[in-house]
Amino acid sequence: MSLTNALPADAARAAKSASHILATLPTAARNNALTAIHSALSASKEEILAANARDLTLAKKAAEDGELSLSIVSRLDLSKKGKWEDMLKGILDVRELEDPVGKATLRTKLDDGLELERVSCPIGVLLIIFEARPEVIANIASLAIKSGNAAILKGGKESTESFVAISKVISAALQSTEVPNTAIQLVTTRDVIPQLLGLDQYIDLVIPRGSNELVRYIKSSTKIPVLGHADGLCSIYLEHTADPKMAVKVVVDSKTSYPAACNSVETLLVEEAALETVLPAVAEALLEKGVSLRCDPTSKKALTAKLSAHSSVILQDADESDFDTEHLSLVLAIKTVSTITEAISHINFHGSHHTDAILTSSSPLAEQFMSSVDSAGVFWNTSTRMADGMRFGFGTEVGISTNKIHARGPVGLEGLMIYKYKIRGGGHVSLEYGESGGQKSFKHEKLAL
Amino acid sequence: MSLTNALPADAARAAKSASHILATLPTAARNNALTAIHSALSASKEEILAANARDLTLAKKAAEDGELSLSIVSRLDLSKKGKWEDMLKGILDVRELEDPVGKATLRTKLDDGLELERVSCPIGVLLIIFEARPEVIANIASLAIKSGNAAILKGGKESTESFVAISKVISAALQSTEVPNTAIQLVTTRDVIPQLLGLDQYIDLVIPRGSNELVRYIKSSTKIPVLGHADGLCSIYLEHTADPKMAVKVVVDSKTSYPAACNSVETLLVEEAALETVLPAVAEALLEKGVSLRCDPTSKKALTAKLSAHSSVILQDADESDFDTEHLSLVLAIKTVSTITEAISHINFHGSHHTDAILTSSSPLAEQFMSSVDSAGVFWNTSTRMADGMRFGFGTEVGISTNKIHARGPVGLEGLMIYKYKIRGGGHVSLEYGESGGQKSFKHEKLAL
Repeated sequence: MSLTNALPADAARAAKSASHILATLPTAARNNALTAIHSALSASKEEILAANARDLTLAKKAAEDGELSLSIVSRLDLSKKGKWEDMLKGILDVRELEDPVGKATLRTKLDDGLELERVSCPIGVLLIIFEARPEVIANIASLAIKSGNAAILKGGKESTESFVAISKVISAALQSTEVPNTAIQLVTTRDVIPQLLGLDQYIDLVIPRGSNELVRYIKSSTKIPVLGHADGLCSIYLEHTADPKMAVKVVVDSKTSYPAACNSVETLLVEEAALETVLPAVAEALLEKGVSLRCDPTSKKALTAKLSAHSSVILQDADESDFDTEHLSLVLAIKTVSTITEAISHINFHGSHHTDAILTSSSPLAEQFMSSVDSAGVFWNTSTRMADGMRFGFGTEVGISTNKIHARGPVGLEGLMIYKYKIRGGGHVSLEYGESGGQKSFKHEKLAL
Repeated sequence: MSLTNALPADAARAAKSASHILATLPTAARNNALTAIHSALSASKEEILAANARDLTLAKKAAEDGELSLSIVSRLDLSKKGKWEDMLKGILDVRELEDPVGKATLRTKLDDGLELERVSCPIGVLLIIFEARPEVIANIASLAIKSGNAAILKGGKESTESFVAISKVISAALQSTEVPNTAIQLVTTRDVIPQLLGLDQYIDLVIPRGSNELVRYIKSSTKIPVLGHADGLCSIYLEHTADPKMAVKVVVDSKTSYPAACNSVETLLVEEAALETVLPAVAEALLEKGVSLRCDPTSKKALTAKLSAHSSVILQDADESDFDTEHLSLVLAIKTVSTITEAISHINFHGSHHTDAILTSSSPLAEQFMSSVDSAGVFWNTSTRMADGMRFGFGTEVGISTNKIHARGPVGLEGLMIYKYKIRGGGHVSLEYGESGGQKSFKHEKLAL
């Protein structure tokens, strides 16, 4: 890793060159680099935590002056219990993942002595823009090296001292490995983001990790493909045959286990026939957890009739904007729908195509919902919070994507790969074949992988 | 198919709604629609050719006035031998392809009663912008319906009468099928392209089919992902152990079999050690075919010494821009390199990442080239012209992509697909599991597909 003050175009060009080398390194060379980074960081704990303490001092002062939120200050702190150890363990976890590079995904005998092979390969140069958490830099450097991609990193300014300290250690560690120093570059100069976002000849993919505002800004400022999601407006459709106990459990988990997460539920669509049967228990449980329920008139009327006076008095009225808002807090919008078709249509036009669930005992309705809802995750009788790379068993998570091309949903290392087509021939040329007027025909025999 | 004069946003919104229905239709329903289109077009040959004749009359007049090239006039003509039959056969060919929708590509048992499945599904709404050829509309409508995607089509104005006639027939044919009429829409009003390119909330992918200028304009005018390539600057690296006969055959095919194609070779990189051994025969064969050779000083000197006086006198001098130009004609730039590393680096920084080949008898050098060159196609001892969906055995070709995400190289129906994650559960929630403080652990068992 190099800490660069180079012009953005020079840094990006150097990253591109490094990516060409990195892409050809064998598995062991990339894994050895991760081992070297792990050892070097372990050995430099003191100096890194000292740098982090300097960031913290400044941040606390800014918080006192009301210029920084306390939650950012808390996220900055690398000395918090378990954080340092988790960061180090994360590097080894990534090292142990299956190598995603060089996997054949198609092999075809085009003709005798002419074989086509499709092989996974790294995308090239990633630009990763993130906010305050200093441990993210080690995680991202590991993912990039493991997947054979070069990366340019730009972190939030509150963590500058920590980033610089960590990147110096990583840089020194890479000197003893086959991974080029410019494969991972930390950019610390200010105001370079707009310039980097214009370098589509060198940078292949942008991954913003941070707030919705950050993602939205990046998406609107570049032609480079952006992996990620700006919004997570997830819905649950509560159908009348849903088991009430199950419904309570799933909706409560979806809303309250981590309300600020992108995979938390924001809208509950209730089938009319469930208003007086399943909904009351769900609503009661949510209210007990402190959730504000913003109800449409029909659901409010039904709940008012069914709930205790104490509960019903705190029901709120939803307005239209509630169904287009990612609250990211203990607020849930409730809307009545007459059919599953109405629920599906509402989700497809008001949701963010992230993760949506149906609660029902009917398998046909569940399958209809899962094929019709146009979202990365479509779940039956389980929490929307299950949308997560670790829970999916991917070993790591680069992010969650609501894109409709390339990678969708929780993205693991596979999402950092593309493929190339190799052909090994013996002088075969196009004009020999039928469609160009020649005598030969292609055989197109599938070969084993 | 509907012929729409609707506002672009209304047309796109209608296409989005239709895409949600189309995505859930079974294979048979989509195939039946293709059968219906085929029959209806067969029955309407006369009226369509009459409309095409009106386009042709106008185009010929425009050509006489010097406002249109003769090659465009020729491409317009649907009555040319075999063209009508090929168009109809193409619809049935697409119908016979394997259904790309609903394929499971990953199945994991997350826990007892909790299964994750990744299933291929259509991308959604495609915007396809193309130029004059009227038969393209039938081809694209077939590909879209087969792959379960809605499509908005905008064709070149020279073919308007033909497009309208074909789309009326397709529209009537779809009435008797389950495919919604608004799934395929032809937009004929002028100046709608900029508006359509701004509708990223409804349109998921843009596919431009036409000139480099068209593709470049589209890429620079939209945030919607664009599938395609603006340039095809392909190179061949001629290493000194290459069999001279093979080299002659492959380079001649790569340059001369269809010089205007994107997969034709534009630059020949010659290893120094091959200058006096393999290159002369290759150059002689190219000159015989009428190819202009634009040589760097070293290769020109070597060829001048080896070729007949007659041949050597027509050698030209390359300037730097020749190595960054897609000539699309019988012009080939020749550059001397001292090593394979120099060849690889030249290709990675001057090429267009489309298709590049190495001619050599050395398997290790070929493998080095194929892993190091950052292009969609990397070929050993075969013509760059092999980069083609039909030749690859994909059955059809949506286009050739130089993108580094989603689909790369020749793109078949698979390139029009994305996936979604389905989970079927029994009330499982996130807080029950270890990483959230619960007692349960995920099992993450791979299941058979």
